[in-house]
This record gives sequence, structure tokens and C-alpha cells, in this order.
Amino acid sequence: MKLLEEYIKNEGKIINGNILKVDQFINHQINPSLMMEIGLELANYFKDKEINKILTIETSGIAPALMCALKMDLPLVFAKKSIPSTMNESYHTKVKSFTKNKINDIVVAKEFINKEDKILFIDDFLANGEAFKGIEDIINQAGAQIMGVGIIIDKTFQSGHEYIINQGYDLLSLAKIRKLEDGDIEFLS
Amino acid sequence: MKLLEEYIKNEGKIINGNILKVDQFINHQINPSLMMEIGLELANYFKDKEINKILTIETSGIAPALMCALKMDLPLVFAKKSIPSTMNESYHTKVKSFTKNKINDIVVAKEFINKEDKILFIDDFLANGEAFKGIEDIINQAGAQIMGVGIIIDKTFQSGHEYIINQGYDLLSLAKIRKLEDGDIEFLS
Repeated sequence: MKLLEEYIKNEGKIINGNILKVDQFINHQINPSLMMEIGLELANYFKDKEINKILTIETSGIAPALMCALKMDLPLVFAKKSIPSTMNESYHTKVKSFTKNKINDIVVAKEFINKEDKILFIDDFLANGEAFKGIEDIINQAGAQIMGVGIIIDKTFQSGHEYIINQGYDLLSLAKIRKLEDGDIEFLS
Repeated sequence: MKLLEEYIKNEGKIINGNILKVDQFINHQINPSLMMEIGLELANYFKDKEINKILTIETSGIAPALMCALKMDLPLVFAKKSIPSTMNESYHTKVKSFTKNKINDIVVAKEFINKEDKILFIDDFLANGEAFKGIEDIINQAGAQIMGVGIIIDKTFQSGHEYIINQGYDLLSLAKIRKLEDGDIEFLS
């Protein structure tokens, strides 16, 4: 997605060697019209798949997932990173966050995911695939099915990309980064 | 907003006396077309005000704020509840969450809010106004201005509503709840 690559080149920053910071338009400040374009691109790719629900994880997955869900006219569920006192029975698992240096719970209430569900998972970043593996675990616990994976920025040089492909899932990554080096961002075309 | 009141009546649940659970369409599962209607209603009300930025707090404020930001063609910033290792200088404050029973940090990077900003704050719930007071503190630290407050569900019988009105802010609450009692939800018309 050319528009997205332009944003990443112009407004993204590389810090600590291999962390790409996109706080200007995705992760802290959000550019709503770019997010709408991202949602449309995802919806267009997955529109002919049998999908009845979109799933993401709080926080930065919500914006692109919401735009895609709006276009596909499907409900969106976001997995939570802590268990609210008001939640009934839930599926949960643990996920390591590298940028925040901690282990998060990932929780989805049982009422919002079941074995009939055919799910499109959307997230902002794919790096080592830890978040994805957590979601995969929860979807397996519920007996539901993963029909596709939509990612805004895929750091293909880390292990998550290969993991998802090897599992046989249909993966659409809107920006595929081949390497981050000396402040340079190289895309996989 | 009639449509929203219908959703609250039909799909909302009251638990522990005065907690209204709207996990079906706002807080865990999100109904994207309802969220778009909410965003349009907020944008329409605030469209003639001098506003250059929309601010919310992760997590549940993001969806309505994004839809409003899309319609108003403005950037959206969401305050974070923890400080990422990648964040530079920030404004921060502390906020008590009643439903999660803990104190959260609320953080906004200094680069995303400054004294020129005229801000519309959007959130899903208004109860005791703790989140709002945190945001007000951060906006004051930055020397920015609050031009309006948009709330999806306002529990007017708690203290937040009165606080915001008394401070002289322009408040739009799309559903105003007068009381929650014995499983009954009474709206203020």
C-alpha cells in the first residue's frame, strides 16, 4: 500500500536499532483518513472470504479493525489486556510485549467468541508474532476458525511473518518491511 | 440520541447496583455502524467550534473518537495508560478506575499536545469524572484549551456531569442516565 509506505518513510522513526515508531499516525496520534484507507484495503482483500467477525487486541489494533469492520458490516471484538471486574467467563492467555517489557494477559469473554465464528484478525504490527499466537490460542480454545490475518506493518525479518505463513493462514500485510538499518527503512515490494 | 438509548435498553446490563455493562456494542464487542452514528452526532454538534484536535483515553474512547475525527477531518490523539519504553517527554497524571479497581497512569507525549491546541475530548462513559479530571490536568499542563466534551453514556447521578458543567465546558452526552435501579435504566430526556 503505497500511501502507507509514504507515511512510514516520512513520519516513522527508527529507535534502538529495530523498533519502528509510528506514533505520529498509528500508535498514539491517529490519522483518521489514512486509517479509513487502511480499513478499505483490508476489507477489499478479505471481502469474498466467509468471515462473520473481526477480532483485534487493544489498543492500537482497534482503529484499523474498526474501519475494516465498518466497511464489511461485521461486529468487532477487541481482546483485553486485563480482566475487568465485570467480566464473566472468559478465554485467556499470556502474551509478552517487547516494547513494553512485560507479560500481558489477553482476555476475551466467552460470550463473544464461539465455535461457529469465522474470524479475521487485525493488528497494527507483526514482529515476533507473540500477540498473534495469543489470539490463535484463544480462538482455538473457543473452537473458532481463523479465516485471515490483516496487518498494517509487518516486520518480515522477525519471526511472526513466517510463523503465520507456515500455519497456512491467509495473511495480508499492507506494508512489508525487509529491514531496518542505520535509520533506513527498506520495503519488500 | 434515540438509537443509542434503544441499544442501551435492549443490550445493556446492570450489575452490582450501579454499573452499566455495554460490552455487547461499546466496551468489548463494538458495533461499527452504531459507532459511526455516534461519531456523526458528535461531529455535527461540535462542527462550528474552533477545534483542531480530538483527544480520548485508551481503550473504549478510541472507537467513537475515531469516527468523530474522521467526520471532522481532525487528528486524534489517545492518552495512554502506561508509559511505553519508546516514549520521549510526556505529560502525565494519575487516574482511579472504579471498574478495574486500580490507579492508572495517563500519559500523552509532549509532541502531540501544545498550547495552540483547541481540544475536543471524547470518552465512552462519564461517571465520577476521574478520567476527565486527569485529561483536564494534562491539557492544563500543556497550556492547551478544552473546547468541548463528548460522552456516549453519562451517568448524570454521579458527580462527573456536574463537575464538567460547573467548570463551564460545553458538554454533549448522547445518552443521559438519570438512575439505575433494580435492573431498570431511566433516561433523562
